[in-house]
Amino acid sequence: MALDLNLQNSELSADERATLAEMRTRCAKRILMCTSLASSGHPGGSLSTLDMLLVTYGAVKHKPNDSRWAGRDRVVMSIGHVSPGVYSVLTENGYFTEEDFLTGFRRAGSGFPGHVERIVPGVEWDGGNLGQGLSTAVGMAQSFKMQGTDQKVICFMGDGEQQKGQIAEAMRYGNKYNLDNLIVIVDRNNLQICGTTDEIMPIDICGLFEVAGWNVLKLDDGHDTNKFFKTFRAAYTGDVAKSGKPTMIEAKTVMAKGISFMEDLSKYHGSPLNPAQLDAAMQELGVENDFAKWAELRKEVVKTNTRLENVVRYPEIKVGEAITYDGKTDCRSAYGNALHSLAVENNVNGVIKIAGISCDLEGSVKMGDFHKHSPAAYFETGIQEHHAASMGSAISREGIACFFSTFGVFAVSEVYNQNRIADINETNFKVVATHCGLDVGEDGPTHQGIDYIGLMSNYFRFNVYIPSDPNQTDRVIREATVQSGNVFVGMGRSKMEMVQAEDGSPFFGGDYTFTPGKGDWVRKGSAGTIITCGAVTPNVMEAHQILKDQGIDVGVLIMASIIPIDGDAILEAAKTGVVLTVEDHHVDTGLGSIVANVMADAGVATTFKRLGVTRYGASGKPADLYAMQGLDGKSIAASFQSLV
Amino acid sequence: MALDLNLQNSELSADERATLAEMRTRCAKRILMCTSLASSGHPGGSLSTLDMLLVTYGAVKHKPNDSRWAGRDRVVMSIGHVSPGVYSVLTENGYFTEEDFLTGFRRAGSGFPGHVERIVPGVEWDGGNLGQGLSTAVGMAQSFKMQGTDQKVICFMGDGEQQKGQIAEAMRYGNKYNLDNLIVIVDRNNLQICGTTDEIMPIDICGLFEVAGWNVLKLDDGHDTNKFFKTFRAAYTGDVAKSGKPTMIEAKTVMAKGISFMEDLSKYHGSPLNPAQLDAAMQELGVENDFAKWAELRKEVVKTNTRLENVVRYPEIKVGEAITYDGKTDCRSAYGNALHSLAVENNVNGVIKIAGISCDLEGSVKMGDFHKHSPAAYFETGIQEHHAASMGSAISREGIACFFSTFGVFAVSEVYNQNRIADINETNFKVVATHCGLDVGEDGPTHQGIDYIGLMSNYFRFNVYIPSDPNQTDRVIREATVQSGNVFVGMGRSKMEMVQAEDGSPFFGGDYTFTPGKGDWVRKGSAGTIITCGAVTPNVMEAHQILKDQGIDVGVLIMASIIPIDGDAILEAAKTGVVLTVEDHHVDTGLGSIVANVMADAGVATTFKRLGVTRYGASGKPADLYAMQGLDGKSIAASFQSLV
Repeated sequence: MALDLNLQNSELSADERATLAEMRTRCAKRILMCTSLASSGHPGGSLSTLDMLLVTYGAVKHKPNDSRWAGRDRVVMSIGHVSPGVYSVLTENGYFTEEDFLTGFRRAGSGFPGHVERIVPGVEWDGGNLGQGLSTAVGMAQSFKMQGTDQKVICFMGDGEQQKGQIAEAMRYGNKYNLDNLIVIVDRNNLQICGTTDEIMPIDICGLFEVAGWNVLKLDDGHDTNKFFKTFRAAYTGDVAKSGKPTMIEAKTVMAKGISFMEDLSKYHGSPLNPAQLDAAMQELGVENDFAKWAELRKEVVKTNTRLENVVRYPEIKVGEAITYDGKTDCRSAYGNALHSLAVENNVNGVIKIAGISCDLEGSVKMGDFHKHSPAAYFETGIQEHHAASMGSAISREGIACFFSTFGVFAVSEVYNQNRIADINETNFKVVATHCGLDVGEDGPTHQGIDYIGLMSNYFRFNVYIPSDPNQTDRVIREATVQSGNVFVGMGRSKMEMVQAEDGSPFFGGDYTFTPGKGDWVRKGSAGTIITCGAVTPNVMEAHQILKDQGIDVGVLIMASIIPIDGDAILEAAKTGVVLTVEDHHVDTGLGSIVANVMADAGVATTFKRLGVTRYGASGKPADLYAMQGLDGKSIAASFQSLV
Repeated sequence: MALDLNLQNSELSADERATLAEMRTRCAKRILMCTSLASSGHPGGSLSTLDMLLVTYGAVKHKPNDSRWAGRDRVVMSIGHVSPGVYSVLTENGYFTEEDFLTGFRRAGSGFPGHVERIVPGVEWDGGNLGQGLSTAVGMAQSFKMQGTDQKVICFMGDGEQQKGQIAEAMRYGNKYNLDNLIVIVDRNNLQICGTTDEIMPIDICGLFEVAGWNVLKLDDGHDTNKFFKTFRAAYTGDVAKSGKPTMIEAKTVMAKGISFMEDLSKYHGSPLNPAQLDAAMQELGVENDFAKWAELRKEVVKTNTRLENVVRYPEIKVGEAITYDGKTDCRSAYGNALHSLAVENNVNGVIKIAGISCDLEGSVKMGDFHKHSPAAYFETGIQEHHAASMGSAISREGIACFFSTFGVFAVSEVYNQNRIADINETNFKVVATHCGLDVGEDGPTHQGIDYIGLMSNYFRFNVYIPSDPNQTDRVIREATVQSGNVFVGMGRSKMEMVQAEDGSPFFGGDYTFTPGKGDWVRKGSAGTIITCGAVTPNVMEAHQILKDQGIDVGVLIMASIIPIDGDAILEAAKTGVVLTVEDHHVDTGLGSIVANVMADAGVATTFKRLGVTRYGASGKPADLYAMQGLDGKSIAASFQSLV
């Protein structure tokens, strides 16, 4: 049922052109119909992109009856709002029925959402936040290069969204890494929501891609299917494809093409036709107006489509041999060593299962050994964190556990929304922030991320681990890699002593296994409990010793697993009568707040205090910064004493 | 004491050159000394930028003995890490003593942090997150254009940071708004932390500025003070300055210039010299090595410099006449009307006290009337949210309350880190997200911001208000404008009924005044309390009616002021025995979590349940999405019943 254009020919045949024209009419009808039925949606851009979408799906490798076929090319819609166009073309190719689409479009629980999502067969990625799609496509193209396949990635973009800065980052990356398996199609209709692109924000799109080193192909009419076929074919199979550089096609189009009274009006970017206008449009298309029939069908309970198997492929990972440290080192070195050891185990025989990304901080984040071992799996993006996060999460859906490391402020605060899209897409992205909290020290407040728990708590699908020493870091990193799905790991910057068991041996060494959702009772005590995680743990252990010396028997519960949290252990701690939480994190949004939620949900009250960061840190040594905010050993002990 | 170069001359005099050379030696010494004393910091870039900094401070308008003089030019350091260079040059100009600087540098509590901060006399902005500085400078330049002054803004940038996409956004904006009072100096030393800029991420910096429409001046030696003076003078006073376009000077420099064994090595980006190397460097400079003396002085308790008066100027705002709505409308219309009425009151006689920014969504965010009334105070940035947030907060420190409006996912999630920098800088930025929560509806999960409280809670200086109907929105917007400082206001998208008092009149109409930190008891009840805010309020009122009809006397406490929170009202609610929180927000990070914290902190337990968003929303009508997540009136009533 899918159209299969003959790429051996340099032009479309007359038959092919006629078929495309017929398809266009049916698709144009569906675009207008679905948006009028839903009383919302984006008809204008859908009609603008339509002819190029039809030709693209006729040319690329895909299997409508096996939409997750691993060998398919990837078509990424950076303009996720042209879902009416995409669904119409996928209908045409037999991915699903017109009835499912038209009765379900933009209805809660249906399989046809307002921005394209993976639940729709044939859609690769939940998108629609403009400016991120090129990075997503770059990630997929990079994964194919890494895996040595000849698959292509096609990315449809708008001209308005070219204003987003992240696109400049993705362009540079595509050039640096010679991604000639990537084709970008920019739908140049000159309109965005509030007016012409020139009125809103002038931009020389071709100029920017040229300066970035891309092949640029200009097309004067993106609605001429034969012209577009020739241009696309050159990029897909011709000389341009062998140039070692990615290609951008700027195609001039007309917003709402094909409906005379809608054409070239920005209001139709996001406005559907009313019934009378729809009728006129159907007449112009020469098709039946069966709006009433569909409207009637939409009164029925929405058909909940079977959710597709997740499009993400997760690798099988060997966990390797845990490393135990004694004496003093930093968690980031333990991370670097664990990552290297995981690469030695898993990146073998030319197969890459683990990749790494950093942003001009390879040495600081301790990725050097990994880089040396797996040079083909290590990517230096420069100071381009937005692109790095979006690209990394896209790489991670193609059978690769992809690590991304930088400071907390860049890996979490700066790219919160890029990681959110990774969360929505259920990828296999491993964000490891090696410099978190006041422990960042002298670089001062702009570089001290004190929000890594508070931010990650707004997702639904990221596990969050904050190890308390290098030994636990080693085990946490192994668990994070083996696990399918997104994981965040945060740590302080400084060297620290290992947490010791009562017998003086490393508590998290040897056979210790990190279990998500389980806290660790490092000390049990009858006078109350200190709950902690991360870089302040040595201070808590010092406070424990101070209190012990005074005859106060306090327990210490280490909560490296923040999400999921060990609610039972918290309620057990509450039974000790006093709970003090201590963290190198904003006092209102981290571990202490989660503990408060667990207790309040259970209807449990106890003597309770949260210690944490209560104002922006200064620039200085971490020990001084901790003392200034009551997070040094003595202050923690005094806080506990004030509660008993 | 400050050097005052003669801009009447086309070249530096021999005297001026000699003075600059002497200054350079003293400053180079300080740069090396302070970083070696602190055992951390950035000597390389400081020496790279040094000559240009010296000439710039000799040329621009500033008053070292009145560092907050309103008429000064603004020097913005996008490369905040070259603080050793900046503090050295400010010392040279008499802003503070060498002793204060060298004994304080990078010590907790001192006035000389590792990245430049406003607490240092002569510094404009707490910066250092690369890529944001140009937007900050653009904001200041835009504020001067708005206010009709002839002041200039000079922005020092690195070459490595040009990789950040936000810079492309700022460039485009500077061109669109003809900011010819803006001069950017790019320190082109070709090195970044991990290697050469070409190795890390190739970029054609001049090409990009040219494509963006800027004047580009190329300088082959940024260490030749006379050459730099001539170039800078052309941009500052000459023909280039009258071109109607901003100017970028790309100056070739050498990392760590002047110390033979350090030059052109990327390791000296962020590494100080050890004592032996420092001694060699002092000999090369021909100056005394008094490291021991300073090291000794640094053993003393750090001198806490008097914190400077905040550099931010806040306007005096007239609150205007509150508007009362009855019937059904949306909060964003109430916002648009309030903003317009505030403009009518305050943007008079050619003085602008209120500005507005949107990102291609003027109609959706209801800024149209404001735009018509105050065209010179309204800025359309295109789809460039990162730039918009950074620019807006910078505008807001220059005597202007600056409003920034778009969807929650763009105003909060996408620009979390830009708003964080605004928070650190204590600006007067008013972020109003007009489309929050599941109430965004058909656009689906990528566009439904359910994290606006959870994210804003990680700051220290943003007040957060979530009004519960259009009447309360009107009063909240007026309060947010009158208030000095950053404010976030979030609202749903849909039209809603007004909250009614028991007598049927609009509860938040008429004389109602919104008070930060005060909740509103809309209904009192003995069987328990529902605490809520925002778009779900009509559902809560429906639940109240359902329960009332069943003889269950439940109270309703509306918490529009989230930060600060009304702890007393929460504890009063807890005394009713049952507390149910309801919100259109992630269930773990919003109002419910804050209520849990208040109760846990007070050692209070009660029957308690949090209702909110527990998974990503679907694409559909808000009413359907609420019903799917138990947030419709019936489900809320049933949840309450299950607790009693």
